[in-house]
Amino acid sequence: MTERLDQEVLKIDCKQAESVIIDFIKKTVEAAGAEGVVVGMSGGVDSSVVSVLCVRALGPERVLGLIMPDLGITPKEDVEDAKTLAEKLGIRTRFIPINPVVDSFLKTVPTGADRIVKGNVRARTRMIFNYFFANALGYLVVGTGDRSEILIGYFTKYGDGGVDFSPIAHFYKTQVRQFATYLGLPEEIINKPASPQLWIGQQATDEIPVDYDVLDLILHGLFDLKMIPKEVASRLEVPVVLVDEVRRRFEVSVHKRIYPPGIENGESLRL
Amino acid sequence: MTERLDQEVLKIDCKQAESVIIDFIKKTVEAAGAEGVVVGMSGGVDSSVVSVLCVRALGPERVLGLIMPDLGITPKEDVEDAKTLAEKLGIRTRFIPINPVVDSFLKTVPTGADRIVKGNVRARTRMIFNYFFANALGYLVVGTGDRSEILIGYFTKYGDGGVDFSPIAHFYKTQVRQFATYLGLPEEIINKPASPQLWIGQQATDEIPVDYDVLDLILHGLFDLKMIPKEVASRLEVPVVLVDEVRRRFEVSVHKRIYPPGIENGESLRL
Repeated sequence: MTERLDQEVLKIDCKQAESVIIDFIKKTVEAAGAEGVVVGMSGGVDSSVVSVLCVRALGPERVLGLIMPDLGITPKEDVEDAKTLAEKLGIRTRFIPINPVVDSFLKTVPTGADRIVKGNVRARTRMIFNYFFANALGYLVVGTGDRSEILIGYFTKYGDGGVDFSPIAHFYKTQVRQFATYLGLPEEIINKPASPQLWIGQQATDEIPVDYDVLDLILHGLFDLKMIPKEVASRLEVPVVLVDEVRRRFEVSVHKRIYPPGIENGESLRL
Repeated sequence: MTERLDQEVLKIDCKQAESVIIDFIKKTVEAAGAEGVVVGMSGGVDSSVVSVLCVRALGPERVLGLIMPDLGITPKEDVEDAKTLAEKLGIRTRFIPINPVVDSFLKTVPTGADRIVKGNVRARTRMIFNYFFANALGYLVVGTGDRSEILIGYFTKYGDGGVDFSPIAHFYKTQVRQFATYLGLPEEIINKPASPQLWIGQQATDEIPVDYDVLDLILHGLFDLKMIPKEVASRLEVPVVLVDEVRRRFEVSVHKRIYPPGIENGESLRL
């Protein structure tokens, strides 16, 4: 029997998923002896889902939301969506425009850096703020990355990738959207086009090899069903070069998903 | 036969170690398709050793040294030692005082943060500068951490720990010092008291459980000889609580040495 490879196979049991994730958040925070979590709230679907789950796991008083727009880049609606959600959840927030810090970075290194280099500075600046509050409060920094983005390396190493644990890293983007609906998040968050918002007008769909509905099926074929690219391509009726490109993105981003390698293959750092 | 547990067992074959490390640096840079490496030069023994090795592996034209003092904290001698070494190695350097950036971070979050929280901001700010240049030049960021510090978690997560690869992570601090002598580094660098210099007067010896000559033997007993703490203590004639404390530091810092955990134990992120 051949495994299915269509949107149907990506359907998740949201009720069960919720209970697994809540348990994971509780246990992780407890095992670390932490008092709560800091979550960077972008107004996007990933961080909104994570915020809701953290509140359900820990209660609103143990969740701090950081809203960190770049005032020249971040759409106003994103800030509004994040603020509205935080209010609804009853959590404390800090509103921290990152511009002064980013400007002081860029003033200090007056080179003609491209937008990706500067975008990474923005993502890493947010990481520093997350940890500033986490360190000060004895909290953990919760990651908001989804499996689609993590697998193709569509995140900034030590930026949005710089977190303590990742409760939705096992869900593809389309699954996070399903989950968002189940959690009752507003339509404008669920259907918002994905974007890291690291420069004006940045859209995930311009940068990922193909839209998430197809990307997620390619990833499911490669990673869950362990198919070879040719088979995935034929089943999905997409060009094999597209599937190869998805696989290539995974391979060139391996370094973002491991502890930095040393000699002796890391064995010297284990007990 | 009982294994030895004294300074003698930590002696390394420097000539062979040099060739292994040079090979590792070359292969890592090549495999990444990178043009060279960025190294943060603090004037301390670890980053000095790594700088020399990178030059021997790649040639001076493919190594960029970043000298990033905090002008209110970093001892002037450290800056001088780093500059002198860079000149001797014939590498390009950028001198970047981190104060404007750190000030803009601290201005943006006007809380009464303690020195550790602020110190972490300094270490992470240096990481951002390292990656700014690495991204712009197509270089890797080389780590300068040694095995002693990494094992007890004496580094800033996503700060000095935020690197692409770590060529001396398999050497204890006392072994790095031996190696520094072999490489012909100046006495003032080799014998300088260890310090992350994240606040005024910070000294590693005030913060680590015991000086490196004993710490490294404890680590060797626990990690290489797989002894239980009681045995290590008895062999070294140190209190067992000290050995327990070293082991505890390892355990509470596990999170700093792994990719952030998710549900499904990371399996969902592997091919």
